[in-house]
Amino acid sequence: MIIVGELINSSRTAVKDAIERRDRAVIEKLAVDQQAAGADYIDVNAGVFGGEEAQHLKWLVETVQAVVGLPCCIDSPDPYAMEAALAVHRGTPLINSISLEKDRYEALLPLLAGSDFKVVALCMSDDGMPETAGQRLAVADKLIQGLTGSGVALANIHVDPLVQPVATNGAYGREFLAAIELIMAGFPGVHTMCGLSNISFGLPNRKLLNRTFVSMAVARGLDGAIVDPLDTRMIAAIRAAEAIIGQDAYCQAFIKAHRAGVLEAV
Amino acid sequence: MIIVGELINSSRTAVKDAIERRDRAVIEKLAVDQQAAGADYIDVNAGVFGGEEAQHLKWLVETVQAVVGLPCCIDSPDPYAMEAALAVHRGTPLINSISLEKDRYEALLPLLAGSDFKVVALCMSDDGMPETAGQRLAVADKLIQGLTGSGVALANIHVDPLVQPVATNGAYGREFLAAIELIMAGFPGVHTMCGLSNISFGLPNRKLLNRTFVSMAVARGLDGAIVDPLDTRMIAAIRAAEAIIGQDAYCQAFIKAHRAGVLEAV
Repeated sequence: MIIVGELINSSRTAVKDAIERRDRAVIEKLAVDQQAAGADYIDVNAGVFGGEEAQHLKWLVETVQAVVGLPCCIDSPDPYAMEAALAVHRGTPLINSISLEKDRYEALLPLLAGSDFKVVALCMSDDGMPETAGQRLAVADKLIQGLTGSGVALANIHVDPLVQPVATNGAYGREFLAAIELIMAGFPGVHTMCGLSNISFGLPNRKLLNRTFVSMAVARGLDGAIVDPLDTRMIAAIRAAEAIIGQDAYCQAFIKAHRAGVLEAV
Repeated sequence: MIIVGELINSSRTAVKDAIERRDRAVIEKLAVDQQAAGADYIDVNAGVFGGEEAQHLKWLVETVQAVVGLPCCIDSPDPYAMEAALAVHRGTPLINSISLEKDRYEALLPLLAGSDFKVVALCMSDDGMPETAGQRLAVADKLIQGLTGSGVALANIHVDPLVQPVATNGAYGREFLAAIELIMAGFPGVHTMCGLSNISFGLPNRKLLNRTFVSMAVARGLDGAIVDPLDTRMIAAIRAAEAIIGQDAYCQAFIKAHRAGVLEAV
């Protein structure tokens, strides 16, 4: 399971303030803590800064990579900000994200073409948000054909089928889960990735819903998630799900996590 | 989701002692507490008493039904004990369980034939424990054909595909989950039911694994489970799973459980 640590996001007030003040210590601590908790990528987002996004995103990448040896998940729909961040990034980043929306697709594809970058391919198009598993598969198919046709390896594509709130439509959870299975079965070697928390939008006990949902998604083939790695119960649910589904040979990682005290007590 | 409360089981020392001493208070409290926690059936088991099982099982049914208005899940492979318990049971019991093992099948089928009893149909045969989803489906098919052919309504059959420990074989979790889906899709109107805790046998943090597993199983169609209803995190996981999978219209039961303080705090 690929864990993308989501905490360095400018939509969070403390992060926005730290970016504005160029307070390295705040960002460094978030990066180090997420690495220690098992993150594979550190998401960086400066989206709230509009026209100044590029300089802030670049500073985030530099600040994060000064203290952790991890690649970033560069989180921006803006190709100009993306290019600025890529110019200073070391290692192989995860670009978050391309979609089938025409402007975004055409702006980001040239950056990706023929590269070794990893990329989140969001199942969104100018036709709007997909509702059914079939609609998600159709968008994923076009994105995968476009990306691989431009020289992006299938193994570098992480399809995000787009989680929507079950409080809005009782079928949204099922359709998302079915989409994970269809995409993983339809394109052997591709990856899937998603933010989870939209599933519980508008409901109480969101963390309980989010980690219950991730267990279900792992059972259908999800192999990456954008989460708060400091949420120990979420990480415990992911480790438990991997063990149950046989993705953790002899449950060794689960037992190791237990011995390290990473899993919750009960 | 049909919740069978598993606590009145003679394999638990406190229960065995209470049965021997005819200590009604212990059994009554377990029955009342499980009902309050949302159990739909109270499992009663006196299996450790061998030749004296019948009299003890009968006493358990009478003691439980004196204080709760719920039906029992009568848990015995012994047709003589089953008949004794049925003779005093009020309402429609869940008979736990018939299997395809020849002796058990032939002894219990006459009790079930043409009745309105509900029955757990365990995917076990004289060929041993099933390993794959396909083997489970094959046993389920024979049990369902036999039961419906003897006048048991499909809607009264709760197939238990038999959970096996993932520590023994990394595929056991996946095969069980696939079996749930195959059985529910193959026999529309049938139910599924299982004890969960075997999944985590031999591993640490068993409760975490058990509730992660139940979430996955609900997402594949499981609509009944034999659990400890006093394990609030397990019940919270089941309620969350039902909400996510759209089995809880407008998430009303989930929100109600939240307001009642039933769900865990975090």
